[in-house]
Amino acid sequence: MSPKGSGNGFVRTLEIEKPVLGNNTADAQRLEQALKKNLGNQMGNRGVSIPLYLLQKLPSRLRAWDYKARAILFKDRRSWHLVDLLAPDSLQPVLGAAIDIGTTRIVIRLVDLEGGQTLGEVGFDNPQAAIGPDVLARIHHSHKPGGLDQLRSLVMDAVNANLSGLCRANGWDTQDIYLVTGAGNTAMTHLFLGLEAFEIIREPYIPCVNILDTLLAREVGLDIHPCGLLFLFPNIGSYFGGDLVAGILFAGLDKKQAPCLMVDVGTNAEIVVGSRDWLIACAGAAGPALEGGVSKMGMTAGPGVIDRVTLDPSTRKMCIHTIEEKKPVGICGSGMIDLAAALFVSGRIDIRGKFSETACGNQLRKEDGLLSFVLVDRANSGTGRDIVLTQVDLNSLTSSKAAMYTILEVIVKNTAGLEFEALETFYVAGTFGSFINPDSAISIGMLPDIDRSRFQVLGNSSLGGAALLLLDTTAHDRIMEIRQSITYIELNVNQEFMNMFSGAKFYPHTDRSRFPSVSIDSA
Amino acid sequence: MSPKGSGNGFVRTLEIEKPVLGNNTADAQRLEQALKKNLGNQMGNRGVSIPLYLLQKLPSRLRAWDYKARAILFKDRRSWHLVDLLAPDSLQPVLGAAIDIGTTRIVIRLVDLEGGQTLGEVGFDNPQAAIGPDVLARIHHSHKPGGLDQLRSLVMDAVNANLSGLCRANGWDTQDIYLVTGAGNTAMTHLFLGLEAFEIIREPYIPCVNILDTLLAREVGLDIHPCGLLFLFPNIGSYFGGDLVAGILFAGLDKKQAPCLMVDVGTNAEIVVGSRDWLIACAGAAGPALEGGVSKMGMTAGPGVIDRVTLDPSTRKMCIHTIEEKKPVGICGSGMIDLAAALFVSGRIDIRGKFSETACGNQLRKEDGLLSFVLVDRANSGTGRDIVLTQVDLNSLTSSKAAMYTILEVIVKNTAGLEFEALETFYVAGTFGSFINPDSAISIGMLPDIDRSRFQVLGNSSLGGAALLLLDTTAHDRIMEIRQSITYIELNVNQEFMNMFSGAKFYPHTDRSRFPSVSIDSA
Repeated sequence: MSPKGSGNGFVRTLEIEKPVLGNNTADAQRLEQALKKNLGNQMGNRGVSIPLYLLQKLPSRLRAWDYKARAILFKDRRSWHLVDLLAPDSLQPVLGAAIDIGTTRIVIRLVDLEGGQTLGEVGFDNPQAAIGPDVLARIHHSHKPGGLDQLRSLVMDAVNANLSGLCRANGWDTQDIYLVTGAGNTAMTHLFLGLEAFEIIREPYIPCVNILDTLLAREVGLDIHPCGLLFLFPNIGSYFGGDLVAGILFAGLDKKQAPCLMVDVGTNAEIVVGSRDWLIACAGAAGPALEGGVSKMGMTAGPGVIDRVTLDPSTRKMCIHTIEEKKPVGICGSGMIDLAAALFVSGRIDIRGKFSETACGNQLRKEDGLLSFVLVDRANSGTGRDIVLTQVDLNSLTSSKAAMYTILEVIVKNTAGLEFEALETFYVAGTFGSFINPDSAISIGMLPDIDRSRFQVLGNSSLGGAALLLLDTTAHDRIMEIRQSITYIELNVNQEFMNMFSGAKFYPHTDRSRFPSVSIDSA
Repeated sequence: MSPKGSGNGFVRTLEIEKPVLGNNTADAQRLEQALKKNLGNQMGNRGVSIPLYLLQKLPSRLRAWDYKARAILFKDRRSWHLVDLLAPDSLQPVLGAAIDIGTTRIVIRLVDLEGGQTLGEVGFDNPQAAIGPDVLARIHHSHKPGGLDQLRSLVMDAVNANLSGLCRANGWDTQDIYLVTGAGNTAMTHLFLGLEAFEIIREPYIPCVNILDTLLAREVGLDIHPCGLLFLFPNIGSYFGGDLVAGILFAGLDKKQAPCLMVDVGTNAEIVVGSRDWLIACAGAAGPALEGGVSKMGMTAGPGVIDRVTLDPSTRKMCIHTIEEKKPVGICGSGMIDLAAALFVSGRIDIRGKFSETACGNQLRKEDGLLSFVLVDRANSGTGRDIVLTQVDLNSLTSSKAAMYTILEVIVKNTAGLEFEALETFYVAGTFGSFINPDSAISIGMLPDIDRSRFQVLGNSSLGGAALLLLDTTAHDRIMEIRQSITYIELNVNQEFMNMFSGAKFYPHTDRSRFPSVSIDSA
């Protein structure tokens, strides 16, 4: 890797004005001037802070380097930070790491801060799951003596081990990592830093902190370069975290002329709608059926899990696809949505979401009065048991899809005053979202019936936003502007909401005209 | 000591808005808002940075304290810093320490940050003197391997030991010290922080740093509260240090309507003239005769040292005063000036500064062709030897006083374009300055012949400025404005200067009309 550093990133090659008699400007202030000149109007009103360890050896270094240097920088709401200075001809790599601090899964991306290339990526389960599967259980645990530090250590140790493994595997050194950016929900952000988190889940639901300043990475236990910095994305509130702010940044909602929408579907459906002029955000329980572990056979993605279900155009039989094409062992969220859509458009469930005994035929079972649709029989499954969808599972999915649609309706129509058709792009974020088939989701009335080309899958937008911040010096200002321009709506589950919700519990909706493109097999 | 904190200092009692449903502002941002409200327009564009260790326990503390707290703050050019939070009813004292980091002597003043009272003061010799008596020798030593750290440790260990002793003696605890301010010349500031200092003394004389940000006190080895901060006054250049900026602040030159002058007499005479609109500074060698250790018998102040010499009005005999009224052992700078004035006005030296054999009579000796004036004979001295002023000592003093007058003339008349009479106040700073008798200094033509009431002794203005910064939240802005508004003049020792200097080598001056109030005994 050759020195570049003249671009727009956080690594800059500086030419510092050499001292002469009659200009007694100190070396540190010469360096400040060179940084100001290099950064130009990106500097803004902020100054550059130079830490003591860099000041101490500055005179001999500048002279040895003939008043040239590679500067590693970072910026936050208060100032630019000079992280380190390297010799102008140094070939040392300058790395950054972006972290998606997910409740379930953590993903780290290693980035070359100069060239901008992704050098590697690693994902692993959040080890806090051993304490509790969800945010609630973990926050309760954090309130016990020693609990907070235990949770913090679990995640920090795992991040350090994975960072180290990721570097080693690719021939890099963790000590060459100078910047770490992280995005997580409000609870994960708190636990990552060892901040008391209990008030997040107790009325009136107050986070310890929303906007964080840049931290010294070693201060929180991150094992990177000793001068390295850590920046975590700010939260909007207890239920709208930095991961979503990172998503907005990544999707670029804050730069759009026409209104767009971003939805991140997980246990909660988090939705942002808006443009460069305004942003409205809302988070609501989308229902447990969309996440593995709740539906009787539902599970998160893994080998053998059914992730796609389609109808054979001629036979109208169900065709399944499993991850890694192993024998089927269960079904994940995207598979569930496909399955429900296939059941509905083939007439196997009616508009109320109830199994049709005639249409399902011998695929339908009844045990203890409960109907189940057998998707894969035991002979063909990888578990030796039938893989079924019960009426209870289906009811749960119906509630979930209705909740999702209602929330979208509330935020887009009732709050923003827009028709769904006015949305230029409909971003679907999150790992789960990446696998949803928009056609299926529209068929069951979970997503609105707009042109399919307007749907755009973002993937891990939280990681994407965190990585963007490592490479784009304008990103921090955008983050603070996003925070400023966003209006967070508490979902008001009142009578009007319940009426809308009831309508959305039909397939695809009680108002059939809203889904003109959904066609159903005539029975 | 009872909680106060509602004043203008760095300790504030805060009322933080309590959280309610519908306002999801995080605790940290509530605290920021309370600080903003409390600080009002003192806040300026700066934000408040809250360190991680305070964030981590913020939620439980705020609730335990019913959303009230005592906040300990500090301010620098970038932001306000929250140093610590105490319970609203806490009686814990909150202390600050101001340090005058002198080349020869270090003085520490302990201050109550709430009440503003001085709690104690301690002075001790700068232990770096063991390495070298002056700045030059020490900087040369700092350039040797391990030398810089040795010098830094020497001063830091001594400061810690004396801080600890000062606290213990008065029943205080060093861990209750939250803020330390320090002012020293440019070299002392560098050595205090372990900054490479060699370039200060090598052409083109470039300091490592002029403007310092606030530092964590523990980062430089100061043993105070673990969260305590350290701020050192900024330098103007290699030869105009933070001690003088502190002096300007203490004298309030930057707030004066009419021009004033401040002179700090040491090895160098450092002079600032100006008002709230402009400041001109200059530092020049005032000559070694004004400091002890150079003149054959000259010494710094101590018991038995002659610090005042007067003429008996009737007998015209010399009357001496010694420190602690011990038997005389030598003479210090202020005594020398008195002595020279007494010799001159009594006609014992002529206008060229040469001893008059007739006027001196048997008090004059000649040894190896060198004339000496015997001030105290061996019978009455504390050393068993005569205490004398040789013609060589006197010549040296003549050069010094001439240099001082010439520098004053250059800066006030030639540079600022003012007459001496236009100076509203003439501040004399420094320990040495405290003892100078203006009448004597005027009699020999060292200081200009202005109304004696305009002279004002400042004492240790460097310490005074450092202490002011501990108690006055507006001081930091003033410091930065002083730095901005000051013009530093390099003394140009050209032919014009040498002509002026030659005129000033007469007693009181070759232009007798400049000193109308100086009357000489007619021989």
